[in-house]
Amino acid sequence: MSSTFGRLFRVTTFGESHGGGVGCIVDGCPSRLALTEADIQPDLDRRRPGQSRLVTQRDEADQVEILSGTFEGTTIGSPIAMLVRNNDARPGAYDHMRDVFRPSHADFTTEAKYGIRNWQGGGRASARETIGRVAAAAIARKLLAHVCGIEVLAWVSSVHTIEADVDEAAVTLAQVEADPTRCPDPAAAATMTTAIEQARRDGDSLGGVVTCVARNVPPGLGTPVFGKLDADLAGGIISLPAAKGFEIGSGFGGTVMTGLAHNDPFLPGDEPHLPTTASNYSGGVQGGISNGATIVTRTAFKPTGTISSPQQTVDRDGNAVELAAKGRHDPCVLPRAVPMVEAMTLLVLADHLLSQQAVDLLK
Amino acid sequence: MSSTFGRLFRVTTFGESHGGGVGCIVDGCPSRLALTEADIQPDLDRRRPGQSRLVTQRDEADQVEILSGTFEGTTIGSPIAMLVRNNDARPGAYDHMRDVFRPSHADFTTEAKYGIRNWQGGGRASARETIGRVAAAAIARKLLAHVCGIEVLAWVSSVHTIEADVDEAAVTLAQVEADPTRCPDPAAAATMTTAIEQARRDGDSLGGVVTCVARNVPPGLGTPVFGKLDADLAGGIISLPAAKGFEIGSGFGGTVMTGLAHNDPFLPGDEPHLPTTASNYSGGVQGGISNGATIVTRTAFKPTGTISSPQQTVDRDGNAVELAAKGRHDPCVLPRAVPMVEAMTLLVLADHLLSQQAVDLLK
Amino acid sequence: MSSTFGRLFRVTTFGESHGGGVGCIVDGCPSRLALTEADIQPDLDRRRPGQSRLVTQRDEADQVEILSGTFEGTTIGSPIAMLVRNNDARPGAYDHMRDVFRPSHADFTTEAKYGIRNWQGGGRASARETIGRVAAAAIARKLLAHVCGIEVLAWVSSVHTIEADVDEAAVTLAQVEADPTRCPDPAAAATMTTAIEQARRDGDSLGGVVTCVARNVPPGLGTPVFGKLDADLAGGIISLPAAKGFEIGSGFGGTVMTGLAHNDPFLPGDEPHLPTTASNYSGGVQGGISNGATIVTRTAFKPTGTISSPQQTVDRDGNAVELAAKGRHDPCVLPRAVPMVEAMTLLVLADHLLSQQAVDLLK
Amino acid sequence: MSSTFGRLFRVTTFGESHGGGVGCIVDGCPSRLALTEADIQPDLDRRRPGQSRLVTQRDEADQVEILSGTFEGTTIGSPIAMLVRNNDARPGAYDHMRDVFRPSHADFTTEAKYGIRNWQGGGRASARETIGRVAAAAIARKLLAHVCGIEVLAWVSSVHTIEADVDEAAVTLAQVEADPTRCPDPAAAATMTTAIEQARRDGDSLGGVVTCVARNVPPGLGTPVFGKLDADLAGGIISLPAAKGFEIGSGFGGTVMTGLAHNDPFLPGDEPHLPTTASNYSGGVQGGISNGATIVTRTAFKPTGTISSPQQTVDRDGNAVELAAKGRHDPCVLPRAVPMVEAMTLLVLADHLLSQQAVDLLK
Repeated sequence: MSSTFGRLFRVTTFGESHGGGVGCIVDGCPSRLALTEADIQPDLDRRRPGQSRLVTQRDEADQVEILSGTFEGTTIGSPIAMLVRNNDARPGAYDHMRDVFRPSHADFTTEAKYGIRNWQGGGRASARETIGRVAAAAIARKLLAHVCGIEVLAWVSSVHTIEADVDEAAVTLAQVEADPTRCPDPAAAATMTTAIEQARRDGDSLGGVVTCVARNVPPGLGTPVFGKLDADLAGGIISLPAAKGFEIGSGFGGTVMTGLAHNDPFLPGDEPHLPTTASNYSGGVQGGISNGATIVTRTAFKPTGTISSPQQTVDRDGNAVELAAKGRHDPCVLPRAVPMVEAMTLLVLADHLLSQQAVDLLK
Repeated sequence: MSSTFGRLFRVTTFGESHGGGVGCIVDGCPSRLALTEADIQPDLDRRRPGQSRLVTQRDEADQVEILSGTFEGTTIGSPIAMLVRNNDARPGAYDHMRDVFRPSHADFTTEAKYGIRNWQGGGRASARETIGRVAAAAIARKLLAHVCGIEVLAWVSSVHTIEADVDEAAVTLAQVEADPTRCPDPAAAATMTTAIEQARRDGDSLGGVVTCVARNVPPGLGTPVFGKLDADLAGGIISLPAAKGFEIGSGFGGTVMTGLAHNDPFLPGDEPHLPTTASNYSGGVQGGISNGATIVTRTAFKPTGTISSPQQTVDRDGNAVELAAKGRHDPCVLPRAVPMVEAMTLLVLADHLLSQQAVDLLK
Repeated sequence: MSSTFGRLFRVTTFGESHGGGVGCIVDGCPSRLALTEADIQPDLDRRRPGQSRLVTQRDEADQVEILSGTFEGTTIGSPIAMLVRNNDARPGAYDHMRDVFRPSHADFTTEAKYGIRNWQGGGRASARETIGRVAAAAIARKLLAHVCGIEVLAWVSSVHTIEADVDEAAVTLAQVEADPTRCPDPAAAATMTTAIEQARRDGDSLGGVVTCVARNVPPGLGTPVFGKLDADLAGGIISLPAAKGFEIGSGFGGTVMTGLAHNDPFLPGDEPHLPTTASNYSGGVQGGISNGATIVTRTAFKPTGTISSPQQTVDRDGNAVELAAKGRHDPCVLPRAVPMVEAMTLLVLADHLLSQQAVDLLK
Repeated sequence: MSSTFGRLFRVTTFGESHGGGVGCIVDGCPSRLALTEADIQPDLDRRRPGQSRLVTQRDEADQVEILSGTFEGTTIGSPIAMLVRNNDARPGAYDHMRDVFRPSHADFTTEAKYGIRNWQGGGRASARETIGRVAAAAIARKLLAHVCGIEVLAWVSSVHTIEADVDEAAVTLAQVEADPTRCPDPAAAATMTTAIEQARRDGDSLGGVVTCVARNVPPGLGTPVFGKLDADLAGGIISLPAAKGFEIGSGFGGTVMTGLAHNDPFLPGDEPHLPTTASNYSGGVQGGISNGATIVTRTAFKPTGTISSPQQTVDRDGNAVELAAKGRHDPCVLPRAVPMVEAMTLLVLADHLLSQQAVDLLK
């Protein structure tokens, strides 16, 4: 099941950075949801590189085609296959990578595992693989909004040592998209832009943190003990390229609090069976199940491994060599990571929304 | 599949803190592995509370019985069922929790999800649920050691603000087990002990961080893109009670490095196809696949929600009430979390070791 | 997943014919279903051998214990573990089977697969393994009856060449249970009894057919294309020991009809959206989805492999030997197969009832 | 998982009879297998209608495109996506089916389940859906032949009351493909042809039986108790359109034998640990595990539901109407069912070949 994510809202992705195309099959989406390519394309466009000078300039149209699963603009319960064609035309651009393992990439490990790799790009380890996830998540986004008004929104909260000051409760999609950095703190965004451009000039790269919130999630989503909502979020998000750390709620910061300060006191809510909490160190999940508060996660993305500075490495025969990546590269993946984190969050929530229907059978 | 973990080395756990018992079925363990209860019990004993004055004093024998799957001391390929009886005998100890939701516990969310809960303890959210995981992982431990000499070792690297100084490459099980804190830095362990005892006196609780290493993992384990080794570790470990954050390799700290510093240069190894790395910011996993270096993870555990100080909360009817937990409580789960983190790491590794056999079919 | 059946109502069984015990974990049963051992035991008692002189006389109490998943007589959404102890006490009874492969048993194939086997009985191939299935199905039975009045009933419709004449629409559980053969045609039952007793005296065995109906199944259950209701029934039922053939509706007999005769004409029903059919050659399933008509299946069980007559075979070293089974044996498994066929039918229906909840999200 | 088949060699299909296209993703195929479209197309061509006057004349090119998972003609361990475009151009051909439920089709049940259906053809219930299965199975065929010389061959053994006389041990692919009926008994084939043509003139349809053998299957494939080889074959094959019955080995015929006659005596084989059997009533599977003998199954296909004679049915509002299918129809699906049965058999065998690798870890 290595290419399939989810239990009931199941996404199977396919495709490498080079070859015929990338995409996915979404199996388990309920019938009777209005759906056309116009619902998918905007999220793909957000994921696409080449949107500004900050990000990699490789030009990709990334037009999605729905191959199956809809009829007259509505889902019919059948698997929804989506395809985005590859149209790279830079023969030779990767020739120097044929026999050399790029440091901190998947080149060596892919070859160790499979005994072969598509050296024309990153193969499945390429960020291009996430197109299938983002396309699938666009469906989840529409379903979740339609059924219970759930909104999932992520942004860049830090790049290298530059931290943004963002009001998690109030920030909007428009604010996030207002700047190519996807940092909704304009001052921090400007500093980040300068730092990213400097990194490009230095042949270096920068990492950072993406914060993601899910609003209006009803209490009860998540299935102990191996389908806990936070565990599924962690597993889904850490499967993104370059993700090295995950927190929910207080995360590592919570370890220096005491229980008395960290516990979220319950307060009477508007309805008897819907209490609220005075604080949200739990990040919206308690015992692996949503409690109705906003779900808040933070994900660490390492500085991207592709840099144009020379680096020490080995070739396939084990000889020491020096490698310098050719062509332009993306010195900071954080802006593009934003829709990817949203995608995994959306997929997890849609999956649990569906699975809760069976739990509620005898409600 | 909410109670099942793994694809090929599959563990299904059962049991609440109160009721007949807890345990698991391990399905997919290869035949011909020598196995008796004596292989399981030591890890269960490490997980058990009541081992020292630091941890909760509830007395549990936790003797495991293998119900199936072995014959004359050897696995036969059938599912291995294991049972540990509950023998709690404190009627009335939980009566005050019948209608009240403990803050930052799973009481409210469980009831929101299922419409009912076993209020006599924590149900599936109890740490007692992890008995099944630890028992299953003891089998994985034996299998991994037998097949490729893999060793998984965790320890307490911080409690509240007290950080241990540990040589990750050299630390041994004996050093970890030398102190009830499971912190192998004796000076830090002593300070932690003082802090934990003070928290108990204060009716408060402390969190911290568990570091875990997996040594001798061969390159090639982990399956892109949704079975990446780090993603499976994240999902497995965050499913542990009280886990709020996960890092592999550089984690959040890596976000303030640049790519040039963070990339792990490859060096020629002893064998042509087994290069080593000059640093290990990747934490032993690149592109979701092990690279042969030691796997290093860090997990944040929040201060435990059970405290004896009075807290503000609501009852099942939505009325504000004040709650004070009765009886003794464990002011710091960190020492007990150590075998749990090891368990999830072992289960993930065993699963991927098995799945790699099919990948290698045409090797 | 070899020991797990189902997607949402998931049963994982464990246990061999010899060892600590047999049983199962049921994961995914909705909360709020009244459930105690008294709901399970009757179906186990029907499955149990030793109920009459017709069937094997080995005495087994087979008392089930619910280990988890209920609280105060109600399911709570947690996995429901159930255990039935083995208490065989015939040391030496199987010694002659240690090194000899019984013809048409799983002895040779188990050893070919696993390199080892528990020769003290049939291991996982023993009919005793079905205890876990029947126990789980008793829960499914209660759930299905409670939610939509579904009734699953099977009976012996033939033994060897003796065919029963049964009104599929009218036959009742009481009629089936009225005779130890579980054949509700008294005349055929009497002839079958005679034939079975003669087979026992001959050291021989007999096979036959079990017919099973599921009444009141609502339209819409079954999930194309790999979760079709008839396909799941076929896969589930053929996994029973000694099952060699499966039919739904017209089955093999339908191949000698023409389409004009075989098609089931739709008739207006009591409700506009619930048409009925004038005939039921489809057996209640069309395109893999229930159509509201009674589901009818027929399962062929071979004559049991265990016979007391001498047989030609080989030992583990490949030498030709003659084998004669010792002790009493069951010359006809058909009566005991009845609750097993019901069990697999119930498990499939419960699984699809749950999965339909998610499909209906936007209904 | 309704669109996914298999545990390790996993196929997820997509596509309806109308829409952008049909196809599949094969996940889990080992790397290092030579593979191009030329390995896939021949099996698709066999599945394709319009090959002779016997079968439906709808013209479909059905050219397959491999979208991912190979590099320079070799599998790389990534998911293999394959696409076949739909290019139907008969607007209006299905208009009369918009509001009418064809008897014994999936029209009513699809609408009962999903509340909506693509009435322009059979949707997922169309035989066109099997393109994805057959394409995936072509990869399995190559893998199985390469690794252990397994050959899977099916043929039409009966149409209506016409039964073929075929030597199961000797029949070849060339003999099967020699006649459009795919019946390798020339005399029976001629009679079948006459009967099928008469059925077409009568506006009627015919069913029949497909026999399938799998040769050179090593002992040990199949995983008790819910992954038994025969159970997986039954579940896979009954998921084919129009399949109503399944037998392995003696099947229903075995129920009128006695155990003494039915048991397959073991004989010493060429190697000590590879005994053979004097007969093969088991059909190559004992206890759900292959025993090294040829696997033999028989599948009943009903007469196809699409006939041009007028039939009684109801419309979506529950009114009685008379329906007559328009255009040409295929009066006998048996010839096309042959590659479909082979496909499911191949997929099951490939899946178990892979899963056995993990079982053999400690061999």
